[in-house]
Amino acid sequence: MGVKIILIVLDGLGGLPVKEGKTELEIAKTPNLDRLARISATGLHIPVDHGITPGSGPGHLALFGYDPLKHKIGRGVLEALGLGLELKETDIAVRGNYATVEYRNGRPVVVDRRAGRIPTEENRRITEKISKEIGKIDDVEVKIAPGMEHRVALLFRFPEPLPEGSDKVKDTDPQRTGVEPLDPVPETPEAEKVARVAKELVGRVAKIIKDEPRANYMLLRGFSKKPELESFEEKFGLKACCIAVYPMYKGLASLVGMEVVRFEGKSLRDQINVLKKVWESYDFFFLHIKGTDSAGEDGDWERKVKVIEEFDSHLPEILDLGPDVLAITGDHSTPSILKSHSWHPVPLLIRSPYVLGGTSSRFTERECLKGEIGIIPGKKIMNLLLAHALKLDKFGA
Amino acid sequence: MGVKIILIVLDGLGGLPVKEGKTELEIAKTPNLDRLARISATGLHIPVDHGITPGSGPGHLALFGYDPLKHKIGRGVLEALGLGLELKETDIAVRGNYATVEYRNGRPVVVDRRAGRIPTEENRRITEKISKEIGKIDDVEVKIAPGMEHRVALLFRFPEPLPEGSDKVKDTDPQRTGVEPLDPVPETPEAEKVARVAKELVGRVAKIIKDEPRANYMLLRGFSKKPELESFEEKFGLKACCIAVYPMYKGLASLVGMEVVRFEGKSLRDQINVLKKVWESYDFFFLHIKGTDSAGEDGDWERKVKVIEEFDSHLPEILDLGPDVLAITGDHSTPSILKSHSWHPVPLLIRSPYVLGGTSSRFTERECLKGEIGIIPGKKIMNLLLAHALKLDKFGA
Repeated sequence: MGVKIILIVLDGLGGLPVKEGKTELEIAKTPNLDRLARISATGLHIPVDHGITPGSGPGHLALFGYDPLKHKIGRGVLEALGLGLELKETDIAVRGNYATVEYRNGRPVVVDRRAGRIPTEENRRITEKISKEIGKIDDVEVKIAPGMEHRVALLFRFPEPLPEGSDKVKDTDPQRTGVEPLDPVPETPEAEKVARVAKELVGRVAKIIKDEPRANYMLLRGFSKKPELESFEEKFGLKACCIAVYPMYKGLASLVGMEVVRFEGKSLRDQINVLKKVWESYDFFFLHIKGTDSAGEDGDWERKVKVIEEFDSHLPEILDLGPDVLAITGDHSTPSILKSHSWHPVPLLIRSPYVLGGTSSRFTERECLKGEIGIIPGKKIMNLLLAHALKLDKFGA
Repeated sequence: MGVKIILIVLDGLGGLPVKEGKTELEIAKTPNLDRLARISATGLHIPVDHGITPGSGPGHLALFGYDPLKHKIGRGVLEALGLGLELKETDIAVRGNYATVEYRNGRPVVVDRRAGRIPTEENRRITEKISKEIGKIDDVEVKIAPGMEHRVALLFRFPEPLPEGSDKVKDTDPQRTGVEPLDPVPETPEAEKVARVAKELVGRVAKIIKDEPRANYMLLRGFSKKPELESFEEKFGLKACCIAVYPMYKGLASLVGMEVVRFEGKSLRDQINVLKKVWESYDFFFLHIKGTDSAGEDGDWERKVKVIEEFDSHLPEILDLGPDVLAITGDHSTPSILKSHSWHPVPLLIRSPYVLGGTSSRFTERECLKGEIGIIPGKKIMNLLLAHALKLDKFGA
């Protein structure tokens, strides 16, 4: 049996004091994590740079060992991944917003850039209608998926891959009301084809939904292509899988070529069952836990504490699998008091037979400050995991 | 009211043990700083690089968020700023040293490169004489300001800006005695004009001061132009001012486009009064305190302790202004036992509502090592201040 490395990402893990000077991690009762912290290497990581608050894309790229400043993921691509669209090399991804326009002298004028934030149900109905009626544009297939409220993701699937620069098309969202939507203007000659398709799409969509009371137009933003990334397996020689519930994280894992394990259920219990089931089939297991981030974003520190405690209760089962290397961290901090992602360093724990240990009595922001890893760039974590798995050669003689 | 960020620079803040194993900061009685340290983010910063002792120029550039390795400030420019000369885009700045020469067969031969370190008073008298008699060189105005002992700063003010490379003129100081001064040789074609002006200047000065017993010649070093720096306001979107007593620091702040507040008096008391007076007019306040560095340079640790204690006594007044973000640090360390700048990391404290805190019981070198900031490059501090002011957008979606 080969090496087994588990990377557990508690999304938005890091926090700030919420009650009596204590953070969510400090308030949580985590006997199993505490015990593990005492025999592990601990530290913190900075996903992008000092003071920089990362989105989920850069945060995960860093954890996967890619430089998030070098490899950028477009907004359209991220939206498509988040809404569960499977992205191909031949796709251009775009984020769409339903909007309300009025026609003056036959020209559309934006009166609400978000169509009054229509209910998600209404979005679903309208999106389905478009999906049925839109048809092909020349030889380009159109995929469309409803998001929350007024948001959708679109894919233009071309018959073959487009050249570098073909996604450089300007947003049609004018960013203010009382004016006409902008044209999807190509910024490079390579982008002319995509711009033409986008313009035709906008026209067709406007016809299909012209009688909707609110969502009678669509604005486009964030034209982007799937980024070209060396695969995780090529880069690190590890056969990797992703065990995640939310489409965004499955999408990010698939961008670097991890196999996304399909399974029923949405609970951590379900995820651990899957982990056990596929244990023999991979070298590297990326387990994504969303609840910490959602609770932080909602400013609900008590729920964040509960998610951490729930994770703690399942930790022994994960340890029982006997991974060679186990890492526990987050893709960024989401302090409940900020109700958003933040720039704060993220607690990190690495367990292997080759650690000092004995530096931190718990797995918290402040205890991790005392640890042997220090505060490191997120993109260096993969180096450490490979090292602890004894998979890296000596550098120089 | 917009955001309010205060950056307090205690020049040469960091120290080394001077008595019973304690540093100046550890010996100082600082109840207010101690209290603040306990509720702040702490750490240390390295202004330039590990092991590198920074001058005041690089130290401050880093604190202002500029890469000190990328943006170099010439010796002539620094001398001019330090002596209070106002530098224009059309200026070439040079450092001058009075020297003693003997004429052999009508040719000057250097016998003392520093003119016996003449008293500053003598320098002032001679410099004033030159200033009166030197006149214009072609269309070039000459400004000259006396420094300490044998040092002066010179500006050649051209009618219009000179091209890139125009300041590449070799020093005329031969770096040893018994030989002729060197010619100001241009190293690029663009520098020929400046070299001609410099040669003419040396000749005229030699005539004006030929009868002085010691300072009868002038050697030139460090030809340089004002560096082209993106302004602080463009870079960070903050309207910034400088509240400093010494010309050098006002000059450094003006290089990045900060407004230098003019005021009467030289004490910290005066500086804090000014801070209060201009509080509504700016977003960012750079407060420079010189005493810590001067005491360190003199090897007078007791005086350094006193300056720190004096600052501590004024801290509550600064806190009462209610800044959104307050940073306290130094531009480098100046340990009294070294009597000079040093390479040691500099204590750093950041207070905002978004810190962990609780890591350091005092604001000292050793306590800051326990803090949540870690040891970071000086040039990253501005990122953190902007983040804590919630002025940075998320990176990636």
